[in-house]
Amino acid sequence: MRTHYCGQVNAGHIDQIVTLCGWNHRRRDHGGVIFIDLRDREGLAQVVCDPDRPEMFKLAEEVRNEYVLKITGKVRRRPAGTENANLSSGEIEILCHEIEILNAAATPPFQLDEDNLSENVRLTHRVIDLRRPQMQKNLMLRYKTAMACRRFLDDHGFIDIETPMLTKSTPEGARDYLVPSRVHPGQFFALPQSPQLFKQLLMVAGYDRYYQIVKCFRDEDLRADRQPEFTQIDIETSFMDETQITAMMEEMICTVFREALAVELPQPFPRLSHTEAMRRYGSDKPDLRVTLELTELTDVVKDVGFKVFSGPANDAGGRVAGLRIPGGAQLTRGEIDACTEFVKIYGAKGLAYIKVNDASQPNETGLQSPIVKNLHETALKAILERTGAQSGDLIFFGADKAKVVNDALGALRSKIGHEKNYLTGEAWRPLWVVDFPMFEYDEESKRWTACHHPFTSPKDGHEDLLESDPGACLAKAYDLALNGWEIGGGSVRIHREAVQSKVFRALGIGAEEAQTKFGFLLDALKYGAPPHGGLAFGLDRIVTMMAGAESIRDVIAFPKTQRAQCLLTDAPSDVDEKQLRELHIRLRQKVDTQIEVKGE
Amino acid sequence: MRTHYCGQVNAGHIDQIVTLCGWNHRRRDHGGVIFIDLRDREGLAQVVCDPDRPEMFKLAEEVRNEYVLKITGKVRRRPAGTENANLSSGEIEILCHEIEILNAAATPPFQLDEDNLSENVRLTHRVIDLRRPQMQKNLMLRYKTAMACRRFLDDHGFIDIETPMLTKSTPEGARDYLVPSRVHPGQFFALPQSPQLFKQLLMVAGYDRYYQIVKCFRDEDLRADRQPEFTQIDIETSFMDETQITAMMEEMICTVFREALAVELPQPFPRLSHTEAMRRYGSDKPDLRVTLELTELTDVVKDVGFKVFSGPANDAGGRVAGLRIPGGAQLTRGEIDACTEFVKIYGAKGLAYIKVNDASQPNETGLQSPIVKNLHETALKAILERTGAQSGDLIFFGADKAKVVNDALGALRSKIGHEKNYLTGEAWRPLWVVDFPMFEYDEESKRWTACHHPFTSPKDGHEDLLESDPGACLAKAYDLALNGWEIGGGSVRIHREAVQSKVFRALGIGAEEAQTKFGFLLDALKYGAPPHGGLAFGLDRIVTMMAGAESIRDVIAFPKTQRAQCLLTDAPSDVDEKQLRELHIRLRQKVDTQIEVKGE
Repeated sequence: MRTHYCGQVNAGHIDQIVTLCGWNHRRRDHGGVIFIDLRDREGLAQVVCDPDRPEMFKLAEEVRNEYVLKITGKVRRRPAGTENANLSSGEIEILCHEIEILNAAATPPFQLDEDNLSENVRLTHRVIDLRRPQMQKNLMLRYKTAMACRRFLDDHGFIDIETPMLTKSTPEGARDYLVPSRVHPGQFFALPQSPQLFKQLLMVAGYDRYYQIVKCFRDEDLRADRQPEFTQIDIETSFMDETQITAMMEEMICTVFREALAVELPQPFPRLSHTEAMRRYGSDKPDLRVTLELTELTDVVKDVGFKVFSGPANDAGGRVAGLRIPGGAQLTRGEIDACTEFVKIYGAKGLAYIKVNDASQPNETGLQSPIVKNLHETALKAILERTGAQSGDLIFFGADKAKVVNDALGALRSKIGHEKNYLTGEAWRPLWVVDFPMFEYDEESKRWTACHHPFTSPKDGHEDLLESDPGACLAKAYDLALNGWEIGGGSVRIHREAVQSKVFRALGIGAEEAQTKFGFLLDALKYGAPPHGGLAFGLDRIVTMMAGAESIRDVIAFPKTQRAQCLLTDAPSDVDEKQLRELHIRLRQKVDTQIEVKGE
Repeated sequence: MRTHYCGQVNAGHIDQIVTLCGWNHRRRDHGGVIFIDLRDREGLAQVVCDPDRPEMFKLAEEVRNEYVLKITGKVRRRPAGTENANLSSGEIEILCHEIEILNAAATPPFQLDEDNLSENVRLTHRVIDLRRPQMQKNLMLRYKTAMACRRFLDDHGFIDIETPMLTKSTPEGARDYLVPSRVHPGQFFALPQSPQLFKQLLMVAGYDRYYQIVKCFRDEDLRADRQPEFTQIDIETSFMDETQITAMMEEMICTVFREALAVELPQPFPRLSHTEAMRRYGSDKPDLRVTLELTELTDVVKDVGFKVFSGPANDAGGRVAGLRIPGGAQLTRGEIDACTEFVKIYGAKGLAYIKVNDASQPNETGLQSPIVKNLHETALKAILERTGAQSGDLIFFGADKAKVVNDALGALRSKIGHEKNYLTGEAWRPLWVVDFPMFEYDEESKRWTACHHPFTSPKDGHEDLLESDPGACLAKAYDLALNGWEIGGGSVRIHREAVQSKVFRALGIGAEEAQTKFGFLLDALKYGAPPHGGLAFGLDRIVTMMAGAESIRDVIAFPKTQRAQCLLTDAPSDVDEKQLRELHIRLRQKVDTQIEVKGE
């Protein structure tokens, strides 16, 4: 129906007759002439309707916001001084010859350029919201990102193989979405939390290099960056080791940023061990754009009088660390109080600090802090030396269980870094975090749980630790972090049945339970499994970052709310009793009611 | 770990040292030398292990079927006379220098080259089954097909936009798979039967050209070519009409066959109206490779004495048609009886026929049939003329409700065509079937139902028929048929709210019901919907045909059985009571038991 997209008509088309289709973005009447900004996916074009074509002009007068139009006209240069440098079509306008109203439109619930719309309004009227240029850009960027991935993976011999959506429930991960079976009364499918086991099976089956851009599901309480269904770029390869896999994936991410966003990521990505990441940044996904670092102080405060420090310093699971803020002595009392409140979110009970004043200045007396008197000279000296603190600096302290210290100071580092501009000035700082522990101890259930997942291979030489010292056993696991977000993670998998069984044992999964739940994996490992590994990237999150969006809901066409609802279609919704009966289930509530009413 | 894939080493690599990784496909010991056929995704390579490298040889002796090996060696030409023309690596062999056993393998449950395995065995040991070269080829072909689609659509400005998997139940289609909501007690999501409404909403939102290769779900009793979850190539575009859409899709299918299968489909695809397809072939997806055609005879037998013909001929919904089989007078009594049995599957009560014998031959007496005496001269003359029957031919007749005649003779046409070789000799015969009726009358519910779906636009000029004569109203709907299979179908959609409401009314969907179920669509149509349309192709079916496979299960990595089970992972399965409680449901069976036991 059209010859060009609106946004693609430019000075190269001057004097050509073009036909455009699109929406009336804006109509202005000016000096007896009607101007229509016609909008389509690619942008805007200005259409000029002169009254000397009366039939056409009459139609132009009928046009309201968001009417769908087909316009034929001649491209001409805009009068000098009326060009719009913000538009690719800003040098030209189209002198309208013919207009056809393809469809009328009621007044939209909001203007497309309206700011500050509530998310409820946006999601209820998602179709209108999706017309907004920013949303169009976001979804286009999402597509380009996914397609750049596919091209890279295709070029590198990966093949897309679909794995099932109706699969088996394995309750030890996150909560499953269940699907009742009609054919098998009382049984359920689960929607996949990831195609993990299937992709491993495909490696055992010899497919060598697999990928899939695939929906995964977790029925968890939602946070800002979570959705019940999310999209993973899921990858697995055989006969490659950790270094080779991460190198290839690094290449992929760089290619994708280059092709979809025209950004060159700094290469090579640094590699930090999990231990080092926690020690220096208190986080396994540190934002390396922030220049601040944590300093280890546990060993130097073991014997100080200040129990807040010496207590955790002498506890096996404790940590004492400092965070030096250069020039931080200028922080106001109010700012420091805000920091103290902030770390409480992470379980910290307080936030000790020392201001390093310049003793040579009038009214300045060196170290200034209520805690100084409880720290002996050696400790103070070590603190100053290790943090490298200078006159005018401030040092915050965390002293607690290591997890609390890391979470609190790690978050504080990032907050102050961004708010007070302790930044390298770079836009993108990717890094690999490697050498994760195999297990973490769950205090509640009193047992070891897998840090990554139970199919992750221990580091070479760490196999014996599986039994002798699970906490010291490191894994061939790796995460890709970017600007403080984890955007992907994976591992080399176990390819030997004996090792897999050992890991199950370490996790307290008995032989019988392992057979029931993962028998098909153990079987597969028996019949010639190749060395293999892979990873998964979170597409929603990557695109959110690329788009500079506030929420992953801004890069998903039809997202759910934080209460897991689709406001547009009103899902979930009630269903017919007949449907439930066919699925051999009933509602709990309903059953109770029936009991009362019918006396069952 | 490797330098090449096994299947890619060839005469060009002679004298090079290569490293290969793969599976021991076969080991032979011959003249004191061990031959290992090493297999990977790309094929086989013959590895020769000489005893003069004792360490390596000792390892080679340990190698059993399906062991995973890493081999380094020198490529050399095979001795004259031992080449294997069936292998791309058939001219060379690799003289083994080093061998590493990466993993051992238990004896597989079956040999990879074993034929006649039951589907149960294959699906239970799917990982081994997927190693079979045919399965590897099928899944590779599936990937190439999908990727060729993506490339074509990308080149034509289509963008992949993901639509939700957790969506709203709309019970009037096929049966939905339901997903209970934890957050909203008593409510359910449905897995999508297709992204139909979402893709239309994306057009209203201005995305112009959409596609998605996407899982869809139908909880129906399974037939040979159905799966609970199946994959659609789903496409929608704005501002294109029926002719433009089908032309572009034709181009896509040709491109895909060319790129994935190196096949040139004959273009342009013929276009048959639905009426003509039924009249000539008794099918809306005729196999045009078959040269046989039906002949319309309803009008010429209205006044014959043979009630079997004149009855249906005078019934508004009846049809009488002939199927001429050239040279068919040679069919034996037994063959004709088999045909009679065959058409009963389709509801035919019998199968009348006339043999056209050559009256000039001895013992031949012209038309031979028990029914001839009940047909008058004019009718017989017309039958011979219209069918073009010659001496030695046979004409089968169908006379019944039109549907029965079409189904029976349409199927018989195909059966005889293939069995008796009435074929054009072409491998592929695609065609478009167009101008479908909008509605068909459902005798059971006594109402009109949508032939395609309720969002399909009537033909231009047919809008008034929606109310005055729904049965005569044609739709802008089109199917792509190939060799007797429907491989895709779609339509131009309704883009005006008033027309959509009219169609809902014609279908007996009241205003209130329409608002509850499709309010979001009606709303969207209000706010400036562009003319739009699209279609969906069945990827599973297309690849099945391309692969020449017997079942779509042979082109799906992890399919379900016909009882909707995954024999590999044992899904569906029982789940914990705790999971059900969280989802606010209980099992019907369980409730009953509890009632007995606890006296609730």
